[in-house]
Amino acid sequence: MDNLCQLSATEAAARIAAGKLKSEALVAACLERIGRRENDVQAWAHLDPELALKQARECDRQQPRTRLHGVPVGVKDVIDTADMPTEYGSPIYRGHQPKCDAACVAQVRDLGGVVLGKTVSTEFATRHPGKTRNPRDPARTPGGSSSGSAAAVADFMVPLAFGTQTTSSIIRPAAYCGVVGYKPTFNVINRAGLKFLSDSLDTIGVLTRTVPDAALIVEELSGSRATSFDAVPDLKPRIGFCRTPYWHQADHATQEALERAVPRLEQSRAKVKEVELDSEFARLVEVQVTISSFEIYRALTYERTHFPDLISENLMGRILGGSRVTRAQYEEAQALASRCRARLDDVFRDYDALLAPSAIGEAPKGLASTGDPVFGSSWTVLHGPAVTLPVFTGPTGLPLGAQITGPRGNDASTLLCAEWVRRALSE
Amino acid sequence: MDNLCQLSATEAAARIAAGKLKSEALVAACLERIGRRENDVQAWAHLDPELALKQARECDRQQPRTRLHGVPVGVKDVIDTADMPTEYGSPIYRGHQPKCDAACVAQVRDLGGVVLGKTVSTEFATRHPGKTRNPRDPARTPGGSSSGSAAAVADFMVPLAFGTQTTSSIIRPAAYCGVVGYKPTFNVINRAGLKFLSDSLDTIGVLTRTVPDAALIVEELSGSRATSFDAVPDLKPRIGFCRTPYWHQADHATQEALERAVPRLEQSRAKVKEVELDSEFARLVEVQVTISSFEIYRALTYERTHFPDLISENLMGRILGGSRVTRAQYEEAQALASRCRARLDDVFRDYDALLAPSAIGEAPKGLASTGDPVFGSSWTVLHGPAVTLPVFTGPTGLPLGAQITGPRGNDASTLLCAEWVRRALSE
Repeated sequence: MDNLCQLSATEAAARIAAGKLKSEALVAACLERIGRRENDVQAWAHLDPELALKQARECDRQQPRTRLHGVPVGVKDVIDTADMPTEYGSPIYRGHQPKCDAACVAQVRDLGGVVLGKTVSTEFATRHPGKTRNPRDPARTPGGSSSGSAAAVADFMVPLAFGTQTTSSIIRPAAYCGVVGYKPTFNVINRAGLKFLSDSLDTIGVLTRTVPDAALIVEELSGSRATSFDAVPDLKPRIGFCRTPYWHQADHATQEALERAVPRLEQSRAKVKEVELDSEFARLVEVQVTISSFEIYRALTYERTHFPDLISENLMGRILGGSRVTRAQYEEAQALASRCRARLDDVFRDYDALLAPSAIGEAPKGLASTGDPVFGSSWTVLHGPAVTLPVFTGPTGLPLGAQITGPRGNDASTLLCAEWVRRALSE
Repeated sequence: MDNLCQLSATEAAARIAAGKLKSEALVAACLERIGRRENDVQAWAHLDPELALKQARECDRQQPRTRLHGVPVGVKDVIDTADMPTEYGSPIYRGHQPKCDAACVAQVRDLGGVVLGKTVSTEFATRHPGKTRNPRDPARTPGGSSSGSAAAVADFMVPLAFGTQTTSSIIRPAAYCGVVGYKPTFNVINRAGLKFLSDSLDTIGVLTRTVPDAALIVEELSGSRATSFDAVPDLKPRIGFCRTPYWHQADHATQEALERAVPRLEQSRAKVKEVELDSEFARLVEVQVTISSFEIYRALTYERTHFPDLISENLMGRILGGSRVTRAQYEEAQALASRCRARLDDVFRDYDALLAPSAIGEAPKGLASTGDPVFGSSWTVLHGPAVTLPVFTGPTGLPLGAQITGPRGNDASTLLCAEWVRRALSE
């Protein structure tokens, strides 16, 4: 009974559907794990065990209809919940109680899932950290901005949690905490009820411990067909090894892990070739800053004009930066992003997926910074699916991720490829 | 003093900036007009005269910095306000008080504008009507969903009001009430704090009595350069007369008004040619329904699962329709929309603007329906700027609109062209 909290969502849902497991027992096991570990990890912004158990008992009274039935889900605290406070990681919203659930939360409930609680976000999903620690080493950051979701999933407190990504806020914390992070294609999970930061980039995704779990929840919410992972052993994927223009920023361990992965993938019958993206792609990190700053300055107008003293120095700097971005610069950045998206579609005619770093290295020491997002931001701008896999180990024994990206809209094939890579590199 | 409420925003702001007019006097004139007319028009969902006057007096204590300084703005009640209830046109949200202003509202305040009050929206900006009547004939619909904004602006209650468009919710009510309606390019006005219906289509825009007023507020919010309308007399625009695939649905008066406009535009030195869009464009009305229904089903999950009895039959039908749209159908619709956007970019190499109907005819009788949106929805899917101009008169003396659309992102040139057309057809 004690290791129920370690079940994947896929396995738990199968047992629930087969009548072999009660949602209440699963949720109780997660709560028990949280009770033991939360003091050290601090993953949760709000948790009401009684409310979670009540939802689980309600699920247990119903006939399972979906693959999410009875499964507990963590919700990043920039996503509205009607029965739990939602503080967006900001003191401006202390105790704030939204009137309605965000679409993705209401969908989880409608599909029979249990909203376990709210996970810690950095301030408005930007850089100023929350209280969460890396469960692998409490002296290190879990990454951000989906800090609590990554830590909670890594620490077996919940099998699934929503994250959001505007720069690298799913990929980086997932890599730092050693879990799977999946940022779907832009506009796959409905964003109604998300606290907006950057309309053109904000993407809801998930943190899980397995690739099929990531597929499961996103497919249920988006109405996509269920991907069968049975075909994975037969795949012979065409993989582009993409160092990206930021390769020199990755540390030695990350570079080496990826370079050594290539022959292992080839041994498992992948076709691997180096892919070099052209010089405009090198500008995407800057483009991401231009677009997001311009939009943040506007999206947070109420907060910056009414509560400037309750905004961190870091975020205020970014807002001020946004105030200086001209419309012409913003439009130029959007045009460059569009061009690169179209060119990446062309690149993907020859590849099923690209392999790239997830972060510059292991989770850095200290809790004052959530780490460098450089390896996430271009893929966010490019709007395609990105998955980080916890397949490498760094010099101090902490996880390093491998990032698999795919063509826009081809999430299923990207997830299959990611699972293939995971198996090839885990053998 | 009595006709201050008839001032355009541009003229009012100029007088305020020159120290010749106080915002308080302007707002008082608007309130006085509302006091006299609201019983018949019913444009306002919430109005607090004291709060409006207080804001105006605060503006009068500050040095004007922007072209919006001291100008009153109506806000469609699907856009959040921190100091006024926001009910989204639904009894589910009776008395709902958001915690913060939507981005566009906070920007208006930050730019020195006055939020006059909340204008009536149909239910969640869909088809089920609110209480508003057409100020030109109270037995007729003002159109929807931006019903209150169109009626208030037409009736001189406020010079500017925000509307939103997912199908034809700015263009249609503006045409029916005889005002200018401007749906900017998708993602020009920041959407944070808008109640989402269809993320891929929802567009915030404005209703005004003049084209320069429409340009003024959108430019101030979006950080765009101020368009100078001085160049209008010198333009020789290349105009495509686009009957659209739905031409047969326009009534005789609408068809005749547009056909008779062509030689008048030519006499004013425009180059006019007929433009026929290819057969895929004929599917855009259906594409708009597919995309919006799929997204509405998800965006309103909380409402449909918790308060089904408080949702109108009309909207519930649309939600049910959305539940039956498969992901594959949705993706096919999005792909078709993308192809048509790219092809329309090509069309616009030869034209500065297209001229098309704004609605099928005059505002229909009765208040049970908000009228047929067929002439708005393709342009919403196409994401470019669209402006309706109150330049024609129908058989019963009610206004008919002419719709000017332009290339995505080229809002300034489209507005210039629209103003040129307005003058040519008003002579």
